[in-house]
Amino acid sequence: MVVDCAALAPPFAAAAMQDKLTLMIPGPTPVPESVLLAMSRHPIGHRSPDFQAIVKRTTAQLQWLHQTSNDVLVITGSGTAAMEAGIINVLSKGDRVLCGDNGKFGERWVKVAQAYGLDVQVIKAEWGQPLDPEDFRAALAADTAKAIKAVILTHSETSTGVINDLETIASHVRAHGTALSIADCVTSLGACSVPMDAWGLDVIGSGSQKGYMMPPGLAFVAMSDRAWQAYGHSNLPKFYLDLGKYRKSAQADSNPFTPAINLYFALEAALEMMQAEGLEAIFARHARHRAATQAGMEAMGLPLYAAAGHGSPAITAVAPEGVDAEVLRKAVKQRFDILLAGGQDHLKGHVFRIGHLGFVCDRDVLTAVAAIEATLQGLGLHKGTVGAGVAAAAAALAG
Amino acid sequence: MVVDCAALAPPFAAAAMQDKLTLMIPGPTPVPESVLLAMSRHPIGHRSPDFQAIVKRTTAQLQWLHQTSNDVLVITGSGTAAMEAGIINVLSKGDRVLCGDNGKFGERWVKVAQAYGLDVQVIKAEWGQPLDPEDFRAALAADTAKAIKAVILTHSETSTGVINDLETIASHVRAHGTALSIADCVTSLGACSVPMDAWGLDVIGSGSQKGYMMPPGLAFVAMSDRAWQAYGHSNLPKFYLDLGKYRKSAQADSNPFTPAINLYFALEAALEMMQAEGLEAIFARHARHRAATQAGMEAMGLPLYAAAGHGSPAITAVAPEGVDAEVLRKAVKQRFDILLAGGQDHLKGHVFRIGHLGFVCDRDVLTAVAAIEATLQGLGLHKGTVGAGVAAAAAALAG
Repeated sequence: MVVDCAALAPPFAAAAMQDKLTLMIPGPTPVPESVLLAMSRHPIGHRSPDFQAIVKRTTAQLQWLHQTSNDVLVITGSGTAAMEAGIINVLSKGDRVLCGDNGKFGERWVKVAQAYGLDVQVIKAEWGQPLDPEDFRAALAADTAKAIKAVILTHSETSTGVINDLETIASHVRAHGTALSIADCVTSLGACSVPMDAWGLDVIGSGSQKGYMMPPGLAFVAMSDRAWQAYGHSNLPKFYLDLGKYRKSAQADSNPFTPAINLYFALEAALEMMQAEGLEAIFARHARHRAATQAGMEAMGLPLYAAAGHGSPAITAVAPEGVDAEVLRKAVKQRFDILLAGGQDHLKGHVFRIGHLGFVCDRDVLTAVAAIEATLQGLGLHKGTVGAGVAAAAAALAG
Repeated sequence: MVVDCAALAPPFAAAAMQDKLTLMIPGPTPVPESVLLAMSRHPIGHRSPDFQAIVKRTTAQLQWLHQTSNDVLVITGSGTAAMEAGIINVLSKGDRVLCGDNGKFGERWVKVAQAYGLDVQVIKAEWGQPLDPEDFRAALAADTAKAIKAVILTHSETSTGVINDLETIASHVRAHGTALSIADCVTSLGACSVPMDAWGLDVIGSGSQKGYMMPPGLAFVAMSDRAWQAYGHSNLPKFYLDLGKYRKSAQADSNPFTPAINLYFALEAALEMMQAEGLEAIFARHARHRAATQAGMEAMGLPLYAAAGHGSPAITAVAPEGVDAEVLRKAVKQRFDILLAGGQDHLKGHVFRIGHLGFVCDRDVLTAVAAIEATLQGLGLHKGTVGAGVAAAAAALAG
């Protein structure tokens, strides 16, 4: 049965309540009040000692989050800017790279690499499936000439809710000996452990509106010593995204260009909250929310889109059968003021996505499951025992 | 007489008062409370109709500010990102460009152009002097082969407080027939009239922490039809700064990458305030503040750094004789909680700069002049009649 959106209009026509909307999309994510208030302070001069103190402190906090002693640099821009910077600062025109592609963001890094004239070999997996580490091992092992300069891949694929096995793939890159690993950790950092040093990652890109619990506008690039060595040879043109300029400024606790000062205030406040919670507690919370969301969906007969065992701790994609996912998603927003994400590109109408990333507590997850269940119930589309979704989620939250 | 900074320490050692600092630097500039509060709202989804409405509205407001019907695109980044985008989207490797250079920002655009392999011909003027439009006319007239693809220059040179004659130089570019004009209007837009269409400008770059009365983090690029034609041929690599992507998204009232949503809230609020004041009133206010600041400085024997008649409406650079400008600047901050800007590069210690840009009223200008005068008086460095500075500024403010 396919439910027509227009036919649903009357029961859901009541206007959503002003200022009540809760974000459960994969970014922007909910922002704590203390972070919002920190952001509304009057800006200070970005060449002042007061601002230098913030840069110094947030740099140490960022290293803590990345579990690294490497440089972590801050760019005013989006996560794409961070990833582009990571790619164009360590590579040169014509360099051969492997790009993992099992979703919209994997596709994007292929496009970035091609825009700069890199020689891109794409390693694909179907959307919803994880990248196969064996594909990377084989391609890297076959490269006895050491022509592959980098492996670019997405850790948590936001478009499909799949988490790729970055640890194993990174180990194959290390075994190659020459190639660098460049990882999009935009929706994994702050959701699960990404120990940069322990895994030997060379470049990590991320963005502020995800696990960082703050609004969009800042992007982060961590660079290993090997990445900096490659920077020395890179010939791709850049200026605003030239990480050497950021590194030099960071050594003086500063930025090369006027940064988004107020977002730095937010960053400092958000990272302070994260440090108070602790990395292990943060990761456990996200794992618990993934489990509860998955259990809730399955209990009400809503299939998960990501392959079993490969669901992201940040986002769960759901592929309802017999109903347009957009209809369901919009009904949840209209009735319960919860914003879920739709499917991207060819998944539009086929999946909806529940973000459980950043400033999300057990109540939020329970609420989202209950709202989806109530909406299914209202539409006459619930395929199991009404209430089973919430019960399953609650059981998973209780551990 | 040169005053030693250390010797001044005791009288100025009192801690500045918390949260009292007033910014009178050329960026960040003061931000109205209503703009700060707008920014502290919880973010909304950037793919939502609510956000589309903000993009639609701010786009129209930006066109009003630029006095144009051209596209004005919004990038999350700094003014440098806007200028780099303007340059790399309309040019190709090896293209010949003229770059005006009479200060730190002129220098920067030369560096950006060189970073991308452009063939740069620099037209220089000494720091403190304006660019000579005749130099541009002659170089363009001599280019009968029409090899010059663009003229890049800074309208208000923030480092020296000089306003260049963009209108006349742009007219020479139009007479050339092929070259495009690419103007850094970072500290002129919102301070004086920059009628993009009337002057026939092709690319204008600006940044949010200046005349826009909001914090840093958003950058703006306006593009003429001729600029878009050049975009079609441009072969310089780009992705995050690819303006074609921004144009396509803007046509759907959206952004290609996750934008700094909360800064959009601020932008909307700030532009609404600017529209309520009106362009002519805004420009008159800045002209009045320039006149008052100049009159005040001259009345107390502090020479202006910019050549007479070429002072920027946004910023006044002052070159005190017989005293380290940094000593004076720091004393004003310490005693009166007003942050002035220092000199950049070789001007450090030789000039200080007073920003009178954006959310600045007559009281702020009078206060800054009074604080500088009181500081000179306290240091025994006042060269005229004590009180003459404030009196001259007040007279200028009264018109």
